[in-house]
Amino acid sequence: MTRVGIIGASGYAAADLMRLLLGHPGAEIVALADLPDKCGPLARLFPQFAGRLDIRITPADAEALADGCEVVFLALPHTASMTYAGPLLEAGARVIDFSADYRLKTPGLYEKVYATPPDEANLADAVYGLPELYRDEIRPAQLIANPGCYPTGVILGLAPLVREGLIDTHDIIVDAKSGASGAGRTPKLLTHYPECNESLQAYAIGAHRHQPEIAEQLSYLAGTGVDVLFVPHLAPMDRGIESTIYAKPLQDLTRERLAELYHAAYDAEPFVVVRDEPPATKHIAGTNYVHVFPTLAGGRVVVSAVVDNLTKGAAGQALQNMNLMFGHDETAGLR
Amino acid sequence: MTRVGIIGASGYAAADLMRLLLGHPGAEIVALADLPDKCGPLARLFPQFAGRLDIRITPADAEALADGCEVVFLALPHTASMTYAGPLLEAGARVIDFSADYRLKTPGLYEKVYATPPDEANLADAVYGLPELYRDEIRPAQLIANPGCYPTGVILGLAPLVREGLIDTHDIIVDAKSGASGAGRTPKLLTHYPECNESLQAYAIGAHRHQPEIAEQLSYLAGTGVDVLFVPHLAPMDRGIESTIYAKPLQDLTRERLAELYHAAYDAEPFVVVRDEPPATKHIAGTNYVHVFPTLAGGRVVVSAVVDNLTKGAAGQALQNMNLMFGHDETAGLR
Amino acid sequence: MTRVGIIGASGYAAADLMRLLLGHPGAEIVALADLPDKCGPLARLFPQFAGRLDIRITPADAEALADGCEVVFLALPHTASMTYAGPLLEAGARVIDFSADYRLKTPGLYEKVYATPPDEANLADAVYGLPELYRDEIRPAQLIANPGCYPTGVILGLAPLVREGLIDTHDIIVDAKSGASGAGRTPKLLTHYPECNESLQAYAIGAHRHQPEIAEQLSYLAGTGVDVLFVPHLAPMDRGIESTIYAKPLQDLTRERLAELYHAAYDAEPFVVVRDEPPATKHIAGTNYVHVFPTLAGGRVVVSAVVDNLTKGAAGQALQNMNLMFGHDETAGLR
Amino acid sequence: MTRVGIIGASGYAAADLMRLLLGHPGAEIVALADLPDKCGPLARLFPQFAGRLDIRITPADAEALADGCEVVFLALPHTASMTYAGPLLEAGARVIDFSADYRLKTPGLYEKVYATPPDEANLADAVYGLPELYRDEIRPAQLIANPGCYPTGVILGLAPLVREGLIDTHDIIVDAKSGASGAGRTPKLLTHYPECNESLQAYAIGAHRHQPEIAEQLSYLAGTGVDVLFVPHLAPMDRGIESTIYAKPLQDLTRERLAELYHAAYDAEPFVVVRDEPPATKHIAGTNYVHVFPTLAGGRVVVSAVVDNLTKGAAGQALQNMNLMFGHDETAGLR
Repeated sequence: MTRVGIIGASGYAAADLMRLLLGHPGAEIVALADLPDKCGPLARLFPQFAGRLDIRITPADAEALADGCEVVFLALPHTASMTYAGPLLEAGARVIDFSADYRLKTPGLYEKVYATPPDEANLADAVYGLPELYRDEIRPAQLIANPGCYPTGVILGLAPLVREGLIDTHDIIVDAKSGASGAGRTPKLLTHYPECNESLQAYAIGAHRHQPEIAEQLSYLAGTGVDVLFVPHLAPMDRGIESTIYAKPLQDLTRERLAELYHAAYDAEPFVVVRDEPPATKHIAGTNYVHVFPTLAGGRVVVSAVVDNLTKGAAGQALQNMNLMFGHDETAGLR
Repeated sequence: MTRVGIIGASGYAAADLMRLLLGHPGAEIVALADLPDKCGPLARLFPQFAGRLDIRITPADAEALADGCEVVFLALPHTASMTYAGPLLEAGARVIDFSADYRLKTPGLYEKVYATPPDEANLADAVYGLPELYRDEIRPAQLIANPGCYPTGVILGLAPLVREGLIDTHDIIVDAKSGASGAGRTPKLLTHYPECNESLQAYAIGAHRHQPEIAEQLSYLAGTGVDVLFVPHLAPMDRGIESTIYAKPLQDLTRERLAELYHAAYDAEPFVVVRDEPPATKHIAGTNYVHVFPTLAGGRVVVSAVVDNLTKGAAGQALQNMNLMFGHDETAGLR
Repeated sequence: MTRVGIIGASGYAAADLMRLLLGHPGAEIVALADLPDKCGPLARLFPQFAGRLDIRITPADAEALADGCEVVFLALPHTASMTYAGPLLEAGARVIDFSADYRLKTPGLYEKVYATPPDEANLADAVYGLPELYRDEIRPAQLIANPGCYPTGVILGLAPLVREGLIDTHDIIVDAKSGASGAGRTPKLLTHYPECNESLQAYAIGAHRHQPEIAEQLSYLAGTGVDVLFVPHLAPMDRGIESTIYAKPLQDLTRERLAELYHAAYDAEPFVVVRDEPPATKHIAGTNYVHVFPTLAGGRVVVSAVVDNLTKGAAGQALQNMNLMFGHDETAGLR
Repeated sequence: MTRVGIIGASGYAAADLMRLLLGHPGAEIVALADLPDKCGPLARLFPQFAGRLDIRITPADAEALADGCEVVFLALPHTASMTYAGPLLEAGARVIDFSADYRLKTPGLYEKVYATPPDEANLADAVYGLPELYRDEIRPAQLIANPGCYPTGVILGLAPLVREGLIDTHDIIVDAKSGASGAGRTPKLLTHYPECNESLQAYAIGAHRHQPEIAEQLSYLAGTGVDVLFVPHLAPMDRGIESTIYAKPLQDLTRERLAELYHAAYDAEPFVVVRDEPPATKHIAGTNYVHVFPTLAGGRVVVSAVVDNLTKGAAGQALQNMNLMFGHDETAGLR
């Protein structure tokens, strides 16, 4: 049994990870930690675990956690993660970080986006935890930078095109729509029920922090710089992201050719399904699946990709990474 | 008092029109008509009118309607409208049609899109009922082609740019998200609550019938051909459409210049508000307002426009047209 | 034109009142006030008023408000209202209070429920603003205690039975379900979208502050003490309250007799509709209507009553009261 | 591996069962069947199974199913189930029926409620599949009558009180609120998104078919007749039922005594959690758990019980029954 600890246990991504771990045949949750004011019995904070997971959240102590756990998930906001990752690694635990702290490798980029210098000491060894792209690097990794929710769907939606050089990498538009759990569990006006319900709006147009992550990862695949105009929207639902991606083809493409390309890229993947009609977020809600539908319209390649922001976009993907790192079946706990 | 009749009284757009007419100081509903199996007391069909509007829906009879009404609204699907418009006009009533039957003027286009020949006899005299563009033509019109819900927001969102020749008219992408009432009142799986709730999906990618309407209207404004890639989405809410529009500027633009352009275009308009941040559909739900927010991002002009699909996108705009046609204050019943 | 001021302009009930006043032919909003940190242009706080109501919220000053306004609505929480009502009345304004501060007349009851002594000086003259019961007292009143949202539907749902002595006044159960706007605009975990959406729960079982208000009002109608077990629930919707009321008949009743009783009580009322099947909250959403459906089942009278918590349950009823007080048509601005 | 077949594979309860079976370590789905017009690849009907369950739905053939399956789940409407149960049993399969066909044992009751004579031949041997009450009878059973969604929560919510004779069995009121998936997958106006969303209403007041099931089961526990007034409501959410139960105590009870009683009844149960505050349906959404909260208010015992209508109210409970019948851990596939 892989012994698991979670820091930041009071958030939605952590709760989704617990839900998944309860069904994992080879892992057990041994410690939950968070800030002192969020400690106490788990079921007090998340009543859905009453009778299912009888455990207390305790103050985070890296050394103690590393002592009892083989792997520690950091379900923390950016800049908070980096205060724990180093000590945990030093004390011998492997770390899977949900934040952006170890995602951006381009020198200076993290600081530019997050206004804080990165943890240079550990950044170099961190592996971007998108199994469909980096499965071999993930297996032996000590530190995983778990991808952002938006980037997961967008990168997988574009990878076959970018890798083959089929589209203009300077003319990509992504129009994404996310459910409200992506904004976290702290109450705020934007996600106050009577404001958010029955409403849809764009936000952070061209200025969302996931844009540099998407562009950097796509540039690795392209072997050249990639520009992406990324426009997120808040949609009135709990979970799920739909990303509609618009790209300009560099050569004549047909729908058949596109379908072949995506099937070739993904048919062996356990969690990516190539669809032949536009997918709905409900089709993947609560699961680790990505559904992608590529087509042609108006002279563009149009790809619709859906992921669950908390599962494949955070906790499920983290568990997929853990499975790879610890030799479990990659799909354990995720079917 | 302007005497009003409605054919197609059993649908959502008709119900929204009745809601608005109840608050109109200078109009009264004198007749509601529909197919025989949809006749009966209005409050049986729409309980929200119990105690407010005590009237029966009766079988549609053009001559009788024209006899009692100065204006008849056709809240009917395409091809159904054209069977009523001619007889009503001949019998002396003015007609405001919610369907697509009189919107497309380009020869052959209606038949191509709707697989039926148009009503040529009346098509030429029909006026496209978008007051912000055609106010003077609307006033004396006998037959109004009320714009589609998607086109209303998209055309108003793009008009200032297209009119001034500021964008490449062959590189326009519109990513629109609509609430479920846009699909009408007939139950179907797509809008069955447990399917549609908590879900968002693209549909009719590049193949929606509102695309030719948008392109034709924009080409009139541009004085040249316009291509639009239009991708609609179904969002889990009752009402509202958010359209995020992506266009390539032909010259250097700044956000300030954009704001000025839109304010110049719309500040005198009673129902168009230029916002300085992205609008939410909730801000215009149930109203005849359009909120638009133009900005620049990633080398593109990005415009977010929101309208209520039933009000400014159908019934409200129809009433605005009626106000113009009959000399009422343009905003009567719409504030 | 009746000149209107509102204190507490930053809340949902105030916003609903503004929406209604915009359509009122004989009233105008001349002043909006709130706490200093909530001041500023109205459209900054409530973008739905952009282009419709160009006014600033300013710090509340009773004397200045009384100077410019004939009536001031207090859209404030309990205990806050009583700090403004006295000074406003003294300065010559009439006051319609949305809070509980002037609703409870039984000596000691207000202090018991709200842990603060009431404003005895003005309490005696306050009129409970339920027009269907107290129309004649409302007309000349200087101070109106506008009823609570839950009590409005429950009292109207029970009044015909209680007045006629047809039910056991010590065996009444009310199971009520409210939309989330009833909890106000301050973000909190209970109404955080990902918590509240897709969820329904009971709260404050037998301990809600509206219970004493319901019991007191019903006891006036009954001429004897009334016990009510009141259990509210939070439902995943913006607006609306459905109250299912269970009462034990004291004599043999039939459904026909019940229907007659309710029709006799309400058919002359402009805003109460007696239905012949269970009403849905959507039938009255955004309106000042109450729909009631009385029936018999399992040896009980069962009444389902629906109201919009913000309109008939707050702002609409307040406006109905204003109409009565200032000689407007009772339904002005409310159709 | 227990070989499983499902007839009625096109409905929501069947889909929920498939979801659960995918995570069951000791069972496999070998056949899915339905009416001829609902046959085809499963993922065409339910895209959420694309890539997870590659199987076709084929026309139902009892003999063939019994040949390949040890157990067949009948996810069918009442009266349809009884045409399959007999032949399946005869051919050697064990049967778990989701419909009401084998639930009512009182002579004449089934026919009275469902207007069809029951399958007398098999009714006598059918076991009511509520494990918390009939675990020992379920283990050897050949035919399980899986409880209704409403009855599951209500019976478990009342069982401790009724068994101990603590309440008046002729004065029980149940006010229940259900999500829309309870109405099935066939589109109809009541559950059409723009009708059902943002709305709550009572229906079938005192006349719902689950009332006799509740009363019969409670009378077995009470050893005497039980009357229940049952009033269901439709709430705007996908899943979940909250039942608020009102009962008159026959002796002095305290909240402490109630809590003890419920803990004694349920602490050993794997899927029933006794809460110390009102539970939300979200706490049990998608799970096989029941949360119950008993309290006292206004002289009544008030119990709030929540279940997921599709899981503990149908598919999850059915799987729990299968686990008992085939010697699996009772919680297999359900944690």
